[in-house]
Amino acid sequence: MNNQLPSHLEEHMQGSKILTDIVIGMSDGLTVPFALAAGLSGAVSAGHLNLIWIAGLAEIAAGSIAMGLGGYLAGKTEVDHYNAELKREYDEVQRLPDREKEEVKGFFFGLGLSEEVQEKAVAEMTRDKDVWVDFMMKYELGLDKPDPQRARKSAFNIGVSYIAGGLIPLSPYFFVHDGLTGLKISAVITLICLFIFGYFKSRITGVNPLAGAIRVMVIGALAAGCAFAVARLIQH
Amino acid sequence: MNNQLPSHLEEHMQGSKILTDIVIGMSDGLTVPFALAAGLSGAVSAGHLNLIWIAGLAEIAAGSIAMGLGGYLAGKTEVDHYNAELKREYDEVQRLPDREKEEVKGFFFGLGLSEEVQEKAVAEMTRDKDVWVDFMMKYELGLDKPDPQRARKSAFNIGVSYIAGGLIPLSPYFFVHDGLTGLKISAVITLICLFIFGYFKSRITGVNPLAGAIRVMVIGALAAGCAFAVARLIQH
Repeated sequence: MNNQLPSHLEEHMQGSKILTDIVIGMSDGLTVPFALAAGLSGAVSAGHLNLIWIAGLAEIAAGSIAMGLGGYLAGKTEVDHYNAELKREYDEVQRLPDREKEEVKGFFFGLGLSEEVQEKAVAEMTRDKDVWVDFMMKYELGLDKPDPQRARKSAFNIGVSYIAGGLIPLSPYFFVHDGLTGLKISAVITLICLFIFGYFKSRITGVNPLAGAIRVMVIGALAAGCAFAVARLIQH
Repeated sequence: MNNQLPSHLEEHMQGSKILTDIVIGMSDGLTVPFALAAGLSGAVSAGHLNLIWIAGLAEIAAGSIAMGLGGYLAGKTEVDHYNAELKREYDEVQRLPDREKEEVKGFFFGLGLSEEVQEKAVAEMTRDKDVWVDFMMKYELGLDKPDPQRARKSAFNIGVSYIAGGLIPLSPYFFVHDGLTGLKISAVITLICLFIFGYFKSRITGVNPLAGAIRVMVIGALAAGCAFAVARLIQH
């Protein structure tokens, strides 16, 4: 496989993929354990406060594995899918060259090029089978060659980010003697973190940082409020 | 904005996006509440069994909001990002037409076309500003025009899938009188669901269904086992 297609965007995308992993892991890690602990803080008595962090840590363990391995599988699936499609394209270019040439021509037609330029471009493009298949993969199927190492890195990044994020809202409950005091401290710390996190997340994705920060914080508050309400409703 | 670029793949992608939402919501919904309940089943005494479903339902409430609104924000961010880049491309085509033409030429060079065909293609392509900008968006920046309705649909699909998935592993705990019996029934039901779900997920993504089904099931089992171990370790 050669690699003659434009790749000036690949480095940029590589970096943003790692950030995406961290953003995914941290945001869920901050939000869900925070909300779960909030829900339980209204439901357990002072004598059973340890249940809040037993549940919280069990959730962090489960969530980090589910998200981390989920990321790993998603990455592995992407690689498998790419390789399966690559094999099929080589096969089709071999068996049905005319149909595949029509598809290349259709692409150039779609760009608004004249019949003459379409024909020439198809003739030049399909001379080298590797370039041809590479083109079909990228522009007909919209598939970028995935990094085989990516799945493992992604799993690790998401899992660790989830644990790091999850320990923040949980930590106050270790130091207090009643759930509601823990909830108040946890809420202040977590909402500040969600704000900061939402701010940088928005800057990365090119959205208004302040609006983005507020949105991320509101999600966390809503999730916690809803978990608290559900736990209270069941208890009574 | 006209829409002359090839869009024969868009319908396919639309369908797979909804499936992606459901797959994301269901898999986390099945896995995390299952693992959390498993963790707590070893930590709460028979008299406090209600804490398992209080925690479980609080988690489902929190998780569905976090994931659902997370999906909504991700979709909204995509739309905002696309519109910001679109504005910038129109601006660049206006202010720096020569540089932008070089970029179009670079694309055709990358496809392995001759100097002559490159020149002609650039001349024809850049005649219509809308076609030109559309091309830059799609093939230079790799951005597809997002569906503005998508963010809302995505949030709804993920949230509902999470709730539906989460209630499955939790339901046995309503009918038993000790945590470990609940865990056994929950494990059997959930692992079967994860297998079925993993099977169809793999078929959609074009991976070997049986291998995929086993992988999804193993993630759930690992997450639950780890949550159980963490809860036991803290308790003692």
